Amino acid sequence: MKHTIEVLKVEECLHSDYIKPKSMYYLHNSVEKRWDIVDTHNSVAILLYHKDLDSFVFVKQFRPSIYVKNHDGFTYELCAGIVDKDKSLIEIAKEEVLEETGYDVPLDKLDKISSFYTAVGFAGGRQTLYYAILDDSMKVSEGGGIENENIEVIYLKRDETLEFMFDESIATTSGLMFALMWYFKNYEK
Amino acid sequence: MKHTIEVLKVEECLHSDYIKPKSMYYLHNSVEKRWDIVDTHNSVAILLYHKDLDSFVFVKQFRPSIYVKNHDGFTYELCAGIVDKDKSLIEIAKEEVLEETGYDVPLDKLDKISSFYTAVGFAGGRQTLYYAILDDSMKVSEGGGIENENIEVIYLKRDETLEFMFDESIATTSGLMFALMWYFKNYEK
Repeated sequence: MKHTIEVLKVEECLHSDYIKPKSMYYLHNSVEKRWDIVDTHNSVAILLYHKDLDSFVFVKQFRPSIYVKNHDGFTYELCAGIVDKDKSLIEIAKEEVLEETGYDVPLDKLDKISSFYTAVGFAGGRQTLYYAILDDSMKVSEGGGIENENIEVIYLKRDETLEFMFDESIATTSGLMFALMWYFKNYEK
Repeated sequence: MKHTIEVLKVEECLHSDYIKPKSMYYLHNSVEKRWDIVDTHNSVAILLYHKDLDSFVFVKQFRPSIYVKNHDGFTYELCAGIVDKDKSLIEIAKEEVLEETGYDVPLDKLDKISSFYTAVGFAGGRQTLYYAILDDSMKVSEGGGIENENIEVIYLKRDETLEFMFDESIATTSGLMFALMWYFKNYEK
């Protein structure tokens, strides 16, 4: 897929529906402290392995946060989404897989791996990680996200994945790195 | 170590030296978009394995970002620090190990594992991950951080670590999960 990015402006953000900076004042062992934080959403992410293609299924996205610092804003990530609706984590995971990749995965095929926190220095989002095995019969649409999300679905052969993970010219995420290591530790002794 | 936490107040943060919200306006394939981001520091983290004790060495910290959402603010993390000075990544890694854990690790004993991004939805910090093997001879101080950081040094036996990682009642980070999975994939077949 061809992408063109043209930056119009980057300016101080005075109000955001997504990023709400807060300051917490507290006593830790009677010593007063202040710590600035961003109140963010929790999230779900899903490691997808397509058994007919012997490939992992990732999403490639443009991330302004990375573009601003590093001038290449395209990342390879797990399919993921924020928890911003009144549904269970596993239902949100199922929806994100469908929206982003076009596979309709039954709830009982989504296995929880674990959960953990990201960016704990300033944000405290908890990410819950699932694993699902896909096959061709589950494919119902093209994916790509909703409302011009421009999400690209990437298939990566299993036997090329360890090399991909440790190629630092490719931008990946800590969640993807953990999930793949979990896979290789458990399924390829 | 006993910790007492007493919250005084949590309020909207109007100015922070650490969290600087920005809005990026751009054209993606000619469609105009806005994305709100937090301009954060890059970071380093170090997986520490103490060979005389057959244990990993972690740090336990109070994290206001997690306390606000989840009411248990203590996390188990890799020794880590932000890149906010004019030194190389590996020199900052060495300094953080000394400050937080009290071990003086020679630069040539710090091996890079890889790098990746965290919290890419709203922040774009790149974390570079190192691995070092410690022994008793490197211990020069108590660690615990600087300026009342209240960092607790934790030793966890290697053979108890996989169970610890997947105990969701314990708050861990994505960096710790990846680093440990990397260790177990490579050193325990």
